[in-house]
Amino acid sequence: MGAKVMATRLDTRETANLIGSDKVDGTAVYGADREKIGSIERVMIDKISGQVAYAVLSFGGFLGMGEDYYPMPWSMLDYDTDLGGYRVNLTKNQLENAPKYSESQGWNWSRENDLRVYQYYRADPYWE
Amino acid sequence: MGAKVMATRLDTRETANLIGSDKVDGTAVYGADREKIGSIERVMIDKISGQVAYAVLSFGGFLGMGEDYYPMPWSMLDYDTDLGGYRVNLTKNQLENAPKYSESQGWNWSRENDLRVYQYYRADPYWE
Repeated sequence: MGAKVMATRLDTRETANLIGSDKVDGTAVYGADREKIGSIERVMIDKISGQVAYAVLSFGGFLGMGEDYYPMPWSMLDYDTDLGGYRVNLTKNQLENAPKYSESQGWNWSRENDLRVYQYYRADPYWE
Repeated sequence: MGAKVMATRLDTRETANLIGSDKVDGTAVYGADREKIGSIERVMIDKISGQVAYAVLSFGGFLGMGEDYYPMPWSMLDYDTDLGGYRVNLTKNQLENAPKYSESQGWNWSRENDLRVYQYYRADPYWE
């Protein structure tokens, strides 16, 4: 009991139920085959509701050049304690066909694109 | 129209409705009197639902020593474009009496403390 209380008190960035944004950002992401496919660039938060709308996965490139960015529903990410990162249940092929953008191209965070992403991953809309 | 589309495309960290975690973290927070009261240390995200449970405001101290941390409901923060930061409708006195923790002391992210914080700010629970 004493040890449990202490552990809870000391880690201010993560508990059983909550995780800090600064601990999510930069965390590695692995695919269905447990190969690393990228890392979390940031999460996008709905300003009004405070709901995480997207986890943005960055992949490839060098020092931010030529990277691809994949906006994904938060529910796609499962934390894998063995891997020490998030695992998404996607094959390489599924990821290649997923909605993405490059730094130069950018992304239009419109409802049309919301639908495109959420339908691709068959996730429940964050906006309802 | 052309300019609007371009602006939407180029800013990948913020839109009218969404904001990136890396843009929230570190942002200044001002009180009801428009005096700076601290900055956002991080947001705490509910792992299952993806709902932001808390914005943690850090205040005072030097290089992380002696700082106080105030977990607040996300809905307390209003972005003020004039100030270039978040404004919370709290007086100094209200903030002094708000639930807080120090780095050494830590915080127990329990349902009891959830209730304590959310009741203090009279906000709707994030967990319901």
